[in-house]
Amino acid sequence: MKSIQIALTGFGYVSRAFFTLLKDKSSEIQKKYGLKFELKLIVKSDGCFKSPYGSLEIRHVSKNGQTWTDGNPFWKKELNLADALNDLGQDGCLVECTPSNYETGQPALDYIKTAFDSNWNVVAASKGALVVGFKEIRETAREKNLNFGFSGATAAALPTLDVGMISLAGTRIESIQGILNGTTNYILTRMSEGLSYAEALKEAQNRGIAEPDPAFDVEGRDAAVKILIITNAIFGTDYCLSDVQVQGISGLDTNYVCEVKAEGKAVKLLATAAPARTGGGWKLGVKPSIIDSSHPLYHVNGTEKGITFLTDSMGLITVTGGRSTPRGTAAALLKDMINIYRNRLTGMAY
Amino acid sequence: MKSIQIALTGFGYVSRAFFTLLKDKSSEIQKKYGLKFELKLIVKSDGCFKSPYGSLEIRHVSKNGQTWTDGNPFWKKELNLADALNDLGQDGCLVECTPSNYETGQPALDYIKTAFDSNWNVVAASKGALVVGFKEIRETAREKNLNFGFSGATAAALPTLDVGMISLAGTRIESIQGILNGTTNYILTRMSEGLSYAEALKEAQNRGIAEPDPAFDVEGRDAAVKILIITNAIFGTDYCLSDVQVQGISGLDTNYVCEVKAEGKAVKLLATAAPARTGGGWKLGVKPSIIDSSHPLYHVNGTEKGITFLTDSMGLITVTGGRSTPRGTAAALLKDMINIYRNRLTGMAY
Repeated sequence: MKSIQIALTGFGYVSRAFFTLLKDKSSEIQKKYGLKFELKLIVKSDGCFKSPYGSLEIRHVSKNGQTWTDGNPFWKKELNLADALNDLGQDGCLVECTPSNYETGQPALDYIKTAFDSNWNVVAASKGALVVGFKEIRETAREKNLNFGFSGATAAALPTLDVGMISLAGTRIESIQGILNGTTNYILTRMSEGLSYAEALKEAQNRGIAEPDPAFDVEGRDAAVKILIITNAIFGTDYCLSDVQVQGISGLDTNYVCEVKAEGKAVKLLATAAPARTGGGWKLGVKPSIIDSSHPLYHVNGTEKGITFLTDSMGLITVTGGRSTPRGTAAALLKDMINIYRNRLTGMAY
Repeated sequence: MKSIQIALTGFGYVSRAFFTLLKDKSSEIQKKYGLKFELKLIVKSDGCFKSPYGSLEIRHVSKNGQTWTDGNPFWKKELNLADALNDLGQDGCLVECTPSNYETGQPALDYIKTAFDSNWNVVAASKGALVVGFKEIRETAREKNLNFGFSGATAAALPTLDVGMISLAGTRIESIQGILNGTTNYILTRMSEGLSYAEALKEAQNRGIAEPDPAFDVEGRDAAVKILIITNAIFGTDYCLSDVQVQGISGLDTNYVCEVKAEGKAVKLLATAAPARTGGGWKLGVKPSIIDSSHPLYHVNGTEKGITFLTDSMGLITVTGGRSTPRGTAAALLKDMINIYRNRLTGMAY
């Protein structure tokens, strides 16, 4: 049995889902992979929960369903990540789940650098640090021979990076097309059934699919962030968010969506990476696109997501599905952790 | 740059496709992964082609499009794999592409054991050895800390094992359903368009999709072999071919297939692994099954293949596509080789 210390940053939906999932899965993972993940630290902006022994339990950090700090022996006010990791020693994995800031990448970017400084591996669900500082993160990880997993930031339970980087190793990927945002796909699906944009959006909000402020999703920025991170990871490029041409779905006309459907086609918000006409680089974009029924993403409806890779030697490979919930994202973080620490990867017998 | 010696067994369609692909991709792989695969040996039943230096080229093994043995300085009559590997030294990868024998697993099984004896890793496209001797292969690889990749034997370019074992690490897979045989899917697709079974089969044969003797495909045995290997790999089980309940599509009535289609559903030859009703194991089967339009494999038509995993924490994940050609299989072999020898796997920055 290999023991691995875990530090968790942030304490929102994804962090809490990860905390719960780790508890639920602990014995299964020990049995199947010989890995014992011990949650030693939860980092908030004003201090840390820290376990003096063993793994933090939910009862150590909350009382009556509320976060518990005052009078809690596990709460270390003003303890910061660097000092806490220094205390834990040079061996562990940071699970980065703070909210994404696409201007500064903070606080995630500093947390990731601090972890690398302490020779900790990192798995991340935050996208901001990857948009702002991916090049630096990648280079530091490489130099220090540390692992950095970010499936949780690239459509979560949909295995975009695993397929693009492992399953397609040795192929030349000629283009990528994805439905990478479940909210807009839900709205477009409902519009194709006759709802107006406003009605479909309201329904999505009522069902907890769209945020109260839906701009980041409906204006295509969430999909732009994801195709940007996926492209930079797979092709080793250094594009920034301003390189992605983005057009969202807000205000799209239901008549148009329904007419397209009547022709046996569909309007989908496709995020794409395609060879640039000149210069040998990639052209990144997000826009409402008409696809016909033979397209592998035609049947991806509702909140479902999907990604299609066109390759030279394997043809088209498409992966669809994967839960779009905090637990789905937590499962993607856990998957990256297991793949970092397990003995053997696969198609390998093990 | 890391140099890796390669030995290739068999010299049929897949071996030749692999040989060509390796040549085509050589500089790309050196540049992208820092790996130099050097084909030192091609093993036939009556001898080996062996390079005294560098990598074997096509001109070293064939003349005027024919295999060239007589008077060929690269041809070593009666040299066997064990002696050849002994000569090459304890470092390399065997690429196993001999025809599959489902009774004995030979010659693949002996080749694989011989490679392991010489501390070589193995990637395999042959299925026979995996049906007959997977347990032994797995245990030997584990004991000797060697890698064994077999994506090429489990639906080739469709990444069944990568997704099931890497992308779904940490999930509990609750069931697997696959369309794992392109030939039968093609026939069923054409039958749903009105052709009789005999007409659809004949068309598939004329187009080179079905073999002159189609029994292995149409009776469901090819799909059975694949679901067996996938199940044993993913769940660490030791089922044999006789544990798979198999029903093929031969003699299926076109009227039945068309009636199902008229109801908005489809008949597909599904290969499945589902929890057994008793005993805690798995029930494996292949049979023509009716699925409705919400099923993720409903839209997998023609020679295309696909696989769906139902999981606890990630929901449904489906992967479809991947070329069903010798070059697609060769690309799967190459992918496994790269993933064995590359420095870092991913969702990891590298």
